[in-house]
Amino acid sequence: MRNGYFDEAHEAYRTACRGFVEHEVVPRQAGWEQEGIVGKDVWRLAGEQNLLCPWADPAYGGLGLADLRYEQIMIEELADTAESGFAVPLHSGIVAPYLAAFGTEDQKNRHLTRAVSGETLLAIAITEPGTGSDVAAIRTHAMPAPDGDGWRLNGAKTFISSGLNADLVIVAARTGEDHAIGLFLVAAHSPGFTRGRKLDKLGLRTSDTAELFFDDVHVPDADVLGGPDQGFALLMRQFALERLVVAMGAVAHAAAALRETVAYTKQRTAFGRPLAKFQDTRFRLAAMRARITSAQAFVDACVLAHNQGTLTADQAAEAKLVTTELQGEVVDDCLQMFGGYGYMWESPICRRYADARIQRIYGGTSEIMKEIIGRSMDL
Amino acid sequence: MRNGYFDEAHEAYRTACRGFVEHEVVPRQAGWEQEGIVGKDVWRLAGEQNLLCPWADPAYGGLGLADLRYEQIMIEELADTAESGFAVPLHSGIVAPYLAAFGTEDQKNRHLTRAVSGETLLAIAITEPGTGSDVAAIRTHAMPAPDGDGWRLNGAKTFISSGLNADLVIVAARTGEDHAIGLFLVAAHSPGFTRGRKLDKLGLRTSDTAELFFDDVHVPDADVLGGPDQGFALLMRQFALERLVVAMGAVAHAAAALRETVAYTKQRTAFGRPLAKFQDTRFRLAAMRARITSAQAFVDACVLAHNQGTLTADQAAEAKLVTTELQGEVVDDCLQMFGGYGYMWESPICRRYADARIQRIYGGTSEIMKEIIGRSMDL
Amino acid sequence: MRNGYFDEAHEAYRTACRGFVEHEVVPRQAGWEQEGIVGKDVWRLAGEQNLLCPWADPAYGGLGLADLRYEQIMIEELADTAESGFAVPLHSGIVAPYLAAFGTEDQKNRHLTRAVSGETLLAIAITEPGTGSDVAAIRTHAMPAPDGDGWRLNGAKTFISSGLNADLVIVAARTGEDHAIGLFLVAAHSPGFTRGRKLDKLGLRTSDTAELFFDDVHVPDADVLGGPDQGFALLMRQFALERLVVAMGAVAHAAAALRETVAYTKQRTAFGRPLAKFQDTRFRLAAMRARITSAQAFVDACVLAHNQGTLTADQAAEAKLVTTELQGEVVDDCLQMFGGYGYMWESPICRRYADARIQRIYGGTSEIMKEIIGRSMDL
Amino acid sequence: MRNGYFDEAHEAYRTACRGFVEHEVVPRQAGWEQEGIVGKDVWRLAGEQNLLCPWADPAYGGLGLADLRYEQIMIEELADTAESGFAVPLHSGIVAPYLAAFGTEDQKNRHLTRAVSGETLLAIAITEPGTGSDVAAIRTHAMPAPDGDGWRLNGAKTFISSGLNADLVIVAARTGEDHAIGLFLVAAHSPGFTRGRKLDKLGLRTSDTAELFFDDVHVPDADVLGGPDQGFALLMRQFALERLVVAMGAVAHAAAALRETVAYTKQRTAFGRPLAKFQDTRFRLAAMRARITSAQAFVDACVLAHNQGTLTADQAAEAKLVTTELQGEVVDDCLQMFGGYGYMWESPICRRYADARIQRIYGGTSEIMKEIIGRSMDL
Repeated sequence: MRNGYFDEAHEAYRTACRGFVEHEVVPRQAGWEQEGIVGKDVWRLAGEQNLLCPWADPAYGGLGLADLRYEQIMIEELADTAESGFAVPLHSGIVAPYLAAFGTEDQKNRHLTRAVSGETLLAIAITEPGTGSDVAAIRTHAMPAPDGDGWRLNGAKTFISSGLNADLVIVAARTGEDHAIGLFLVAAHSPGFTRGRKLDKLGLRTSDTAELFFDDVHVPDADVLGGPDQGFALLMRQFALERLVVAMGAVAHAAAALRETVAYTKQRTAFGRPLAKFQDTRFRLAAMRARITSAQAFVDACVLAHNQGTLTADQAAEAKLVTTELQGEVVDDCLQMFGGYGYMWESPICRRYADARIQRIYGGTSEIMKEIIGRSMDL
Repeated sequence: MRNGYFDEAHEAYRTACRGFVEHEVVPRQAGWEQEGIVGKDVWRLAGEQNLLCPWADPAYGGLGLADLRYEQIMIEELADTAESGFAVPLHSGIVAPYLAAFGTEDQKNRHLTRAVSGETLLAIAITEPGTGSDVAAIRTHAMPAPDGDGWRLNGAKTFISSGLNADLVIVAARTGEDHAIGLFLVAAHSPGFTRGRKLDKLGLRTSDTAELFFDDVHVPDADVLGGPDQGFALLMRQFALERLVVAMGAVAHAAAALRETVAYTKQRTAFGRPLAKFQDTRFRLAAMRARITSAQAFVDACVLAHNQGTLTADQAAEAKLVTTELQGEVVDDCLQMFGGYGYMWESPICRRYADARIQRIYGGTSEIMKEIIGRSMDL
Repeated sequence: MRNGYFDEAHEAYRTACRGFVEHEVVPRQAGWEQEGIVGKDVWRLAGEQNLLCPWADPAYGGLGLADLRYEQIMIEELADTAESGFAVPLHSGIVAPYLAAFGTEDQKNRHLTRAVSGETLLAIAITEPGTGSDVAAIRTHAMPAPDGDGWRLNGAKTFISSGLNADLVIVAARTGEDHAIGLFLVAAHSPGFTRGRKLDKLGLRTSDTAELFFDDVHVPDADVLGGPDQGFALLMRQFALERLVVAMGAVAHAAAALRETVAYTKQRTAFGRPLAKFQDTRFRLAAMRARITSAQAFVDACVLAHNQGTLTADQAAEAKLVTTELQGEVVDDCLQMFGGYGYMWESPICRRYADARIQRIYGGTSEIMKEIIGRSMDL
Repeated sequence: MRNGYFDEAHEAYRTACRGFVEHEVVPRQAGWEQEGIVGKDVWRLAGEQNLLCPWADPAYGGLGLADLRYEQIMIEELADTAESGFAVPLHSGIVAPYLAAFGTEDQKNRHLTRAVSGETLLAIAITEPGTGSDVAAIRTHAMPAPDGDGWRLNGAKTFISSGLNADLVIVAARTGEDHAIGLFLVAAHSPGFTRGRKLDKLGLRTSDTAELFFDDVHVPDADVLGGPDQGFALLMRQFALERLVVAMGAVAHAAAALRETVAYTKQRTAFGRPLAKFQDTRFRLAAMRARITSAQAFVDACVLAHNQGTLTADQAAEAKLVTTELQGEVVDDCLQMFGGYGYMWESPICRRYADARIQRIYGGTSEIMKEIIGRSMDL
């Protein structure tokens, strides 16, 4: 169904991504798994090979490929390895675009350039203990510094992906009542900024999800992204992209899980026959492929719409809802076909299953997606 | 999501279809419902307005619009009315293409021209009592006529859509062992050709599904479509289109059901509030819309692939499987939102629900679709 | 799993029910189907054989078998025939118990006795155009007659089962604000009482669902059931039984559908093998049986709880919710296994499918069941 | 719905179980979690308090309570703590019954007595690398010892629960062709018996699942359970009990997950309201409770049938199928309601979710359950 969706330039980029994954990611995975975190060296390597933020303007070191298909290609190649901690989609597809879209020239020069080169790993901190998808409930706050120079941040964030490894964090903090929220660029070495322990999760075991604490952290005016009370609007504008990035990953992971399971059921026998020859197995695999093909067509259409600037918030919500629900069902059924082995952490499907569960939650839960879609239907 | 999918020429055609439906279909529906069958006059009118087989070559009276989106537009406009018996998709999208694809110049002149003008209503007769989706089990047979002139058909067909109204039926009949099957063009007035009563069905109440009987029906050589033992291959080639036509209808009907239900839940109150304001209702409607948007993107991609000649049999099977399952779930949930009224035949959702149930069965059951998809995965 | 659930007396009653169904119901079904309504003669026959309201006190002609398993047996035997219009469960299990529970001695003598004998067919009229499951929204009202003798009823009811055949209707009508509702016993021949046409429905084609109109209908004080403002409370008390009766039917119909489908798939072949030998078919049938066995155990436990007087409203709601959802899924999947034949009205599974759809709606929708259950959980 | 299901003696036993769990299990859990394995001391304590194998004959130290409800009570109390590694259901409900049912007086004296007292922790080893639910494919074999004294075991087992902590393992090993399989009692200290590392799993993190290796392990004739070629039949006989034990756990865990989630959604707010006040949340919780109540009624009926000796293999398979599928759906939906916190290992729902996934696999997969049920239906 993807006839003509990718052209030769895309395929060349895929070859580069695949080579990088094969030579730099896969050999490190056992170590990352053991350490429970991704080593930072790999980011520089990716940057050197121009695999981070390929959309960025050459002025900031990017390739100027303003076409989300390039991100999608990297996402698909990473999905093949079931790697959860090397968070290129987050860095490159979700956070760096804030800098590009809303940053001043100075901010782009200082931060985006380093994000593209892999010197600076980015994170974004919105969620707090007690607030889930409800951005308006944020309590971390920023007050003008008493000496008139910049801002003082206080509060705590939780469930922050790349929380430990990040060099620069975009922090959403309240600057007034209601929707008056600002986005503050906080460097990891800032005094008063501390990080909690790595949170132990169901999956994403190499991903360094953490709590972040802000105790009178000073942020100069030059590191406020957009206006100090514009953050809510900026977040809302970027959420569509974030959800599409999640959706691209969801369908890529579902497809990868299916590929592995098809391969496994073809070689694994039970009662004297390959599993894949049992009608029940065959039908379930076929039904999964049909749904994945369908969801892929939808996501690809959304990517093209994003490229054209026509993707709406509710379409992105639809894409996230449909694909993450699908991913959840696919990994569940695939794991079942692996039997006892599927429950062992050493099997890729086990990691895929554990990783998948967060997809329906972060970036806005399935319930929030329904709210957004419903609102666009005037319900 | 359909940005740019339809162009101005498509929209002009849609306007024509919508006008026809409004002026010629809707006013006749009550009568058709009462008679339990569609009157034949409407077909000539549709032909006169160039709304049948727009893809056909102008040499045979068509508009030469070899673009399946035109069929899709008509399907969508008809879906809006919940009309089940005025079988344009079958006539124009499924059966007439056999004539165009495999007919001789003579056959096209005699039959396709009249199909385009609406003078001849087409049907295709494959299924028999005792064979479902298993074409190789056909027992109706054609033997060379003893006088050397053409063929003699004997046997029976069942569940034939447009069986009573059809003027010309493409009949699949065995001419040898195994897959030696021919397609025979049988005129309704042929001696020995009789039709059973209209079958009473769950839905499609205005559709004249019937049994057909062939008792030494003579078919001249000039009315064999393709070679007398090529029918199996021809059927297999056309099944992809048939399934895509069903898929286009399935998603169009699901979308129409959702539109009606959204409208209903906005005006209908319970416990003092519009139904649409209850979160459970809102979320279910939103989830349906997400799935419909996604399926529509897939079907549209299939239509474009068909236009380019790249649609494969397994992709068409995926489209039919995904969309008809979706349609089934959507009409079920929509009916629920109509409450007791939804169970009354007078409510459109009731007819939609009843009509939808056959979609997972005809044109190849969901199980057959899974077989086809599975085979393409080497399972 | 039903070891010991039925004893010898139950089995004897089952034999009687089965004989009655075989000799008096089945031979009449074709006629009822043609007329679109059940003939009234069969009710007297059932009464003569003591098959109506076996729970009723012998003083009123009953057998004094205050054990809901007797109703359940009749429901199960009727479910076997896929008969929808001969509404014993409604008459005997739902409406007559109102007379027994709340009737005066005089009311029981006049009405219950005739209900037990089959001379009087009962119906209950609650739903109105514009009110669904929201009893408090009833607008039909009863005002004290100006001459001080009884009440005057005005209003309209809709979707009333047995609406045309009923001889006596329990009508819920407003006698004051809010929950001040009375239950009035209205004889069919009462001046001012008229009935609309039989409503055309998706299924239940022999069931005479109708609208009822009340135009200054006089009801003597002696035919008010309970106090004139006690109706709301009485309805709430009886709804648990009504829902359990629906649940008993739901699981019985699901079990009957499965039995028929197992039999069909064993004899019907496709691709040279009985359908039942295909693993996909076998697994789906097995999964259905597991769920039906489980639901049956639950319903049986509810029946025993009802017998002991311990069944709560939320348990009955759980039973209705679980069993009617199950029935819906079972008939859908069973119909699929019948293929094209399953879509023909002549196949029992087609009628079962069409009949089943109302079960999730009447007697309180699935949504209302969730409200009731949720309330009992303090949600 | 469980009115009268438990009597006073059961309640007293529950009190004892609850006290044990509170005082001996809960305080140790943090340590077990850290070590990744349950300490062995707790087994002796449980034995001292008569909480292991209460069904065992007093001759072997048991309470002689041949009523599976006692096991069920312990299972329910353990389920409340979301403890996965303290495998009383396996030890007491699944493995020890082999000794009681098939052991010689000598075997019972030596082994059952110590199992009841908690001195000997039991495991059973059937699964091998390459065989899943296919017992007939076992390759571990036992050959008569060359000196005529007992047997020599060789082979490997995998995915063995309590594999590291077990003191005595019942090992299924081939003694001839096809179904000639024996059950051998292998003490942990036997020369040639070694264990692999603890397998890292999706969940059950404190459970010591391991590989076992047998290298010329000597088993005296006195430690063959039943005849040396009777093992297949013995396994088949006990599988019904094993599956019912899994089913009892599945519904207990589902109920516990729901309880926790109800409590959480009542106190957790979003958008200014407790989650439990959102209709979507409320309806989902209500629907879960209905299904759990229903499944519980079924399991309880199976327990009583087991007590009476009438539980069949296919009923047990139905119970395992229905309850483990339900558990899977419940924990998935409950986790969703916890949002990001639900994905953190520290939240009980996260562990429950991870633990639940194996339930549809071990003790016979859902697919095997369908085979068994289907066979009992003559499919």
